[in-house]
Amino acid sequence: MPQPDVMEKLVSLCKRRGFIFQSSEIYGGTGSVWDYGPLGVELKKNLKERWWNSMVRSRDDIEGLDAAILMHPRVWEASGHVGGFVDPLVDCRNCKKRFRADDSKIKGTPGTPDAQCPACGMKGTLSEARQFNLMFKTFMGPLEDSAAVVYLRPETAQGIYVNFLNVQQSTRQKVPFGIAQIGKAFRNEITPGNFIFRTREFEQMEMQFFVEPDSAPKWFEYWKAQRMEWHRALGLSENRLEFHEHTKEELAHYARGAFDVQFDFGGTLGFQEIEGVHNRGDFDLTQHQQFSGKKLEYFDQPANKRYLPHVIETSVGADRTTLAALVNAYREETVEGESEGRTVLGLHPSLAPIKVAVFPLMKKEGMPEMAQKIAADLRKDFRVDYDDGGAIGRRYRRQDEVGTPFCITVDVDSVAAGGPGDVTIRTRDDLSQVRVPVAQLKAAISDLLSRDETRATIEALSETWRRV
Amino acid sequence: MPQPDVMEKLVSLCKRRGFIFQSSEIYGGTGSVWDYGPLGVELKKNLKERWWNSMVRSRDDIEGLDAAILMHPRVWEASGHVGGFVDPLVDCRNCKKRFRADDSKIKGTPGTPDAQCPACGMKGTLSEARQFNLMFKTFMGPLEDSAAVVYLRPETAQGIYVNFLNVQQSTRQKVPFGIAQIGKAFRNEITPGNFIFRTREFEQMEMQFFVEPDSAPKWFEYWKAQRMEWHRALGLSENRLEFHEHTKEELAHYARGAFDVQFDFGGTLGFQEIEGVHNRGDFDLTQHQQFSGKKLEYFDQPANKRYLPHVIETSVGADRTTLAALVNAYREETVEGESEGRTVLGLHPSLAPIKVAVFPLMKKEGMPEMAQKIAADLRKDFRVDYDDGGAIGRRYRRQDEVGTPFCITVDVDSVAAGGPGDVTIRTRDDLSQVRVPVAQLKAAISDLLSRDETRATIEALSETWRRV
Repeated sequence: MPQPDVMEKLVSLCKRRGFIFQSSEIYGGTGSVWDYGPLGVELKKNLKERWWNSMVRSRDDIEGLDAAILMHPRVWEASGHVGGFVDPLVDCRNCKKRFRADDSKIKGTPGTPDAQCPACGMKGTLSEARQFNLMFKTFMGPLEDSAAVVYLRPETAQGIYVNFLNVQQSTRQKVPFGIAQIGKAFRNEITPGNFIFRTREFEQMEMQFFVEPDSAPKWFEYWKAQRMEWHRALGLSENRLEFHEHTKEELAHYARGAFDVQFDFGGTLGFQEIEGVHNRGDFDLTQHQQFSGKKLEYFDQPANKRYLPHVIETSVGADRTTLAALVNAYREETVEGESEGRTVLGLHPSLAPIKVAVFPLMKKEGMPEMAQKIAADLRKDFRVDYDDGGAIGRRYRRQDEVGTPFCITVDVDSVAAGGPGDVTIRTRDDLSQVRVPVAQLKAAISDLLSRDETRATIEALSETWRRV
Repeated sequence: MPQPDVMEKLVSLCKRRGFIFQSSEIYGGTGSVWDYGPLGVELKKNLKERWWNSMVRSRDDIEGLDAAILMHPRVWEASGHVGGFVDPLVDCRNCKKRFRADDSKIKGTPGTPDAQCPACGMKGTLSEARQFNLMFKTFMGPLEDSAAVVYLRPETAQGIYVNFLNVQQSTRQKVPFGIAQIGKAFRNEITPGNFIFRTREFEQMEMQFFVEPDSAPKWFEYWKAQRMEWHRALGLSENRLEFHEHTKEELAHYARGAFDVQFDFGGTLGFQEIEGVHNRGDFDLTQHQQFSGKKLEYFDQPANKRYLPHVIETSVGADRTTLAALVNAYREETVEGESEGRTVLGLHPSLAPIKVAVFPLMKKEGMPEMAQKIAADLRKDFRVDYDDGGAIGRRYRRQDEVGTPFCITVDVDSVAAGGPGDVTIRTRDDLSQVRVPVAQLKAAISDLLSRDETRATIEALSETWRRV
């Protein structure tokens, strides 16, 4: 079943509610670069934290790393990016516009008299394709000459390869083990677009797992399964996730195998890569060993042998996965017995930017004071919103729209007999409500969030509390 | 009392134990750029998390943001960086070396016949001072011409100013409120150095607080006090922290007041800025309003007036503060009754990269199995190390050196009668030990870490447990 195209609505919601703004918007924007607003930064932080916990903190065989964006330029010669990280471009001699040579709007073969410019429509004005490197370059030090050129890294992986022995020796890890990293990368894309799907500045979450060569196929299967499961646990729908195996044509020359985890973004975008799982052989360490002149071999003591480990790489786009989580979560629905519908971001509660919202039912009889006190207390542990503006139904809708899993309402009964009595917790996804004593509120919310369930529903609420 | 110079020892420890490596080390390094290794990335993450929690999550008057590194180039014209973010440089016509014009090693006035080059020693070969912009520049899009120039941001603050109204309107915040951000910035420094103190790629933690103009002096005092207290709570010694008030000569032309929080790094480096607290007036919003042509005024509904808020800025160097925490924590000491001394990183437990280490006393009688089970269980909540290699004293020393606040040892008694019985928790700073039942271990460690004390000592241990 084709998924609906929600992108336009999502872009609007993201700006209006402070998830994502166009970069430098007051200056007309920066080409395909985006800023994360107050709710977006929390969402993306939560996503990165989930990845870091699953990859680094909860395991004893993966170490973390945070390598710099600016690296020695020889790194990119060794990796092949200086020579090969290129897109073929053509120019129109008439209108001066540039296009990717494989742009489907170009009619005819660029460089021949028949080729027609898709912008100005002239014939015979398109140049032959020329190679254009996608790395951003800059100059380090006071001189702007070729010796001063450094690049903004186009991927984080190389920071891991060049630190392989530093990490292995300082942590005394034994192969098999991995190195994980989250960080920015930059690509001077010719045709970026689709909101935060393809941007010039983006964030990657990469893990390179170093293995004994014969065991590489086994570990490749292991990581394929692990990574798909991670996306499922995030709440991405089963029917929107699939593996795409690279064909011989797509496969890099050194690669032993490559699968993309694809997510169905709906509309014309459809299934697109959000993560790559690759069996890279010993290509990377071989290259760096050769270009640096430094031995990068691992000594396997029990087996008494030296070798270059093979690498299984898992590489997630943090922005793409954030977008996938948003697209997956977005829904509009009617509510029984209500005339107005609601928009919901059904995000996994662990990803939700705001965990709890606290409302006084009315602005009187001590309700605002009690609600503010509850909010301040919960704020020590969770991201909390307090809202006393407008009708209660409207306040619920405002929270639904940004994915807040639990709303707490302080009502007349809560403050009766001098309060604090019970308050209502309302769940985002099935709109159920339970009454919980204020003294148990923090424990209740902690319990609900620790269950790691993808939806915020009544099933997640302990039977200790009374449904209302 | 002058503080000792521990920098050299610290650099060595940081490399050996995986805190900080030179970037692209196998290629001879990248100029003044550093990579955070497995322990360094956790330390810095913990530091950033403490800042984010104190500034954003625990408050209702500050919103988070994560603006992009690449911004519209007009931003840097408005901010004054294109015109004014410069260092004066001089060249030697003989040896081609470059120096800062204020380099104390230069004898005489550059550009005059008497001036002597500090490198080759020739007289009269030094050029007059020329202005050199410290921003890294690159080109966006396929053309490398002046219209394509963009800069790597030299500070994160401008991302906050240009998003002021986007954030205010999407969150419905009312002045006074703040916007906080953690992110990378880049400066093409001519004389970087002192390890991670001054680097070309660095990370800032900035918060801009927008206030009604008349209240700016009051908020300035508030934030000065708050920020100094934050550094103290981090465990930085009282006598190593001080305010430095900018003199008239140091003060930027628009600034109404500026104080640096300085930390004493010891040795020749001494007291240096780790944070700036500035009263910037309405300079930034005025500039961006003028350069963008977009109104950035805030409408104060109750007072029925429109104005440009004034800004109180707090700007912390994340790398500098990480270095301060390391320098502050480093100590060598003798232990009563032991022949060998020990090196300790007395980090605040919340900053420690590893929270708990688990050891089997011996590799037999089920001790390793029980210790591994404990480690796996604790790992769900904390960063845990398991170590069964070498004498127990040596294992303690290895953890002391990286700042692990608590070590758990599984001994013969723990596994007696089929175990699990009690295990020993040993504290890093006073070397005290208590016995705790395995069933209560997770609660005990959670309790210890939640106390937010700067040292790991017996005082932090509840009286529930028996001291041994």
